[in-house]
Amino acid sequence: MKMYKQMSREELLQEQQALQQEYKGYEEAGLQLNMARGKPESAQLDLSMPMMDIVDSKSDCTAEDGTDCRNYGEMDGLPEAKKLMAELMECKPEQVIVFGNASLNVMFDAIARALIHGVCGGKPWGQQGKIKFLCPVPGYDRHFAVTECLGIEMINVPLLEDGPDMDMVEKLVAEDPLIKGIWCVPKYANPTGISYSDEVVRRFAKMETAASDFRIFWDNAYCVHHLYEACEQQDRLLNILDECARAGNPDRVLEFASTSKITFAGAGISAMAASENNLNDVRSIMAIQTIGYDKINQLRHVRFLKDRAGVDAHMMKHAAIMRPKFELVEQLLEQEIAPLGIGTWTTPRGGYFICFRSMQGCAKRIVSLAKAAGVVLTGAGAPFPYGKDPENAVIRLAPSYPNLEELTMAAKVFICCVKLASVEKLLG
Amino acid sequence: MKMYKQMSREELLQEQQALQQEYKGYEEAGLQLNMARGKPESAQLDLSMPMMDIVDSKSDCTAEDGTDCRNYGEMDGLPEAKKLMAELMECKPEQVIVFGNASLNVMFDAIARALIHGVCGGKPWGQQGKIKFLCPVPGYDRHFAVTECLGIEMINVPLLEDGPDMDMVEKLVAEDPLIKGIWCVPKYANPTGISYSDEVVRRFAKMETAASDFRIFWDNAYCVHHLYEACEQQDRLLNILDECARAGNPDRVLEFASTSKITFAGAGISAMAASENNLNDVRSIMAIQTIGYDKINQLRHVRFLKDRAGVDAHMMKHAAIMRPKFELVEQLLEQEIAPLGIGTWTTPRGGYFICFRSMQGCAKRIVSLAKAAGVVLTGAGAPFPYGKDPENAVIRLAPSYPNLEELTMAAKVFICCVKLASVEKLLG
Repeated sequence: MKMYKQMSREELLQEQQALQQEYKGYEEAGLQLNMARGKPESAQLDLSMPMMDIVDSKSDCTAEDGTDCRNYGEMDGLPEAKKLMAELMECKPEQVIVFGNASLNVMFDAIARALIHGVCGGKPWGQQGKIKFLCPVPGYDRHFAVTECLGIEMINVPLLEDGPDMDMVEKLVAEDPLIKGIWCVPKYANPTGISYSDEVVRRFAKMETAASDFRIFWDNAYCVHHLYEACEQQDRLLNILDECARAGNPDRVLEFASTSKITFAGAGISAMAASENNLNDVRSIMAIQTIGYDKINQLRHVRFLKDRAGVDAHMMKHAAIMRPKFELVEQLLEQEIAPLGIGTWTTPRGGYFICFRSMQGCAKRIVSLAKAAGVVLTGAGAPFPYGKDPENAVIRLAPSYPNLEELTMAAKVFICCVKLASVEKLLG
Repeated sequence: MKMYKQMSREELLQEQQALQQEYKGYEEAGLQLNMARGKPESAQLDLSMPMMDIVDSKSDCTAEDGTDCRNYGEMDGLPEAKKLMAELMECKPEQVIVFGNASLNVMFDAIARALIHGVCGGKPWGQQGKIKFLCPVPGYDRHFAVTECLGIEMINVPLLEDGPDMDMVEKLVAEDPLIKGIWCVPKYANPTGISYSDEVVRRFAKMETAASDFRIFWDNAYCVHHLYEACEQQDRLLNILDECARAGNPDRVLEFASTSKITFAGAGISAMAASENNLNDVRSIMAIQTIGYDKINQLRHVRFLKDRAGVDAHMMKHAAIMRPKFELVEQLLEQEIAPLGIGTWTTPRGGYFICFRSMQGCAKRIVSLAKAAGVVLTGAGAPFPYGKDPENAVIRLAPSYPNLEELTMAAKVFICCVKLASVEKLLG
């Protein structure tokens, strides 16, 4: 195969014709496939069905500390649930509060709370002028939607192979006291799949910030979501809570995690880990905002997953379903796209996404071609604040939801669309 | 028995001595009783234990519309859950969104949303100056805590036998565009147990408001929480959504309800009923704030409670546990307090509370005496904004949590404390 860039106009036109033929075939097949969202497949959900029997009508619903999980009380979460979530986040139970089913909601509330009440006794963010968040890109669209919704300005920072561009991060936070936060998915990042290096974590912990009320939003969404079992094939992340404490900035970070992609998407439990000062901020408002979170579901999770070893074993069952999907997509891309020089992609060792980078200016066209052929992809631009990808090149691929057969077809359609859009681009 | 007011100083001193003797006995008994919170007793929680088996590992978790309840999606709540909650609130499913376990959180979010984004396209409440809420008193302390936490000024309005003093409400909302809301518990009110008359509901629907973005927060927390089975012994509430629509003010009301005191306190489901415009406000922010609510728990509730008839039958089992407790407390008060002329109380036909009114200036002393004798009551002042009961007379009694034996003891201690505080007051 010849690289597209080396093809003559004649050759490109010929290629285009063949691709249009192939594309027409997909269009006519009336496909309905979806690679848009990091949604577990139903076989993954089946893995947690035994949890449904764990708390039954005969069960004692008393927690370790004597709490009746069926009644009001225990705002912090059950002691055993705090312990479990602490094991996931590799911190201490006393650093953890357990919430309801959505960690996104916990992050939203954390920012809303800071806007209205400030953090740790500081002036409310909302009374300090137009505040800003740093957004490593490409990143998670829902993080950016939260900051935008709450009226916070977003500043792009490139996400490199080992984390955000820390030279840039350090410079910006040292200069501007209106920069109050940064969004991070530090392990198996959404969407590139990279994990932050020890060096990056340490620089985050140590850096000087102009704002004394600056917070890192450390969304450790994929903390145990490996694709491979062997230790050397798993990413490891340095514990930022420890590093921040060691660096004399114990209140700098709010860490989040959930079981949404461990047990049931939308029916899991979520948690925040942070310093006592930060947790007390949460508690002071949470006690007014709600009567507490669903403790029966916390109990269900603890009795089903048991501990970190239980979680790890369970996650390997997920990996067995997910891994072939990642490998399939990567193999097809390697086979079909690599020789043509019209795209690059990540090969993550965990998480939910492959990040594809097309030739500049092609992403929107690829997504729209795929949609017209019945394959829904994450919107082009979604991994960027305000939905604006300056290079119009990044596409997030979510291979988890379709089964292998559907995924093969979806990947073929995607590849055809990448080729078609690239040819169009080169033909000008 | 002689009324205290008719006693001579001599007689009062004698009475005080006898009471102090009795009180000392309670102190020495080392009691640990609680009448502070509207918490179900464990026998009530047992009523819903069969729900734990309703969704098990063999269950099909597909909703009516094909949604896999174990996965992401369906922000509005399952169609069957909307239907169930609509039956509880006596409205249409399309007027309902189903949320997570805490309706309080839904109310908090509704106000926070209005502050930041405004309602139905209006200017954000937070940008309109110092806004205010009307607070019928005595009322629900957690409502007042939410408004205070969100920086909203509170104005007391007397709660009468058939609802808030509507002359006052109408006058205030007609005059002041900064009055943006009013808190209502329209049925079996917390804490007085009264229900709003048809006339009050209609006046709410029709009244002129200076603020075009005024909202009634209609917390229908006890909509199906009757103590008696016979129709003529149950309160009926006019449907405010219908009345508002009829009066040309369809967007005026946000209604809330939950199953916290139907199934499990803290592990139920909650809902809001409102006009399409209001629901779209919710949806626009909810889609950013969360990935959705726990649909498995929604499914569990629907399959267990089935429909309004199922709920009503289930609530009669609660009533059988609750009714004797209310009757016990009322009977002891009737016997011990009525003849002395030192207090009045409500005799509600539903809900969770009896509202006791002591002689002026005695409530704090009664609560503190009871506490020292091992009986925790709701703090004096709690049913008022800022915790300030201008007459220091109202005490909310929550008879649900203790069993009958404990409740008898708690009521005796309470009565002794009322007498003691009253004697002290009269002695000056």
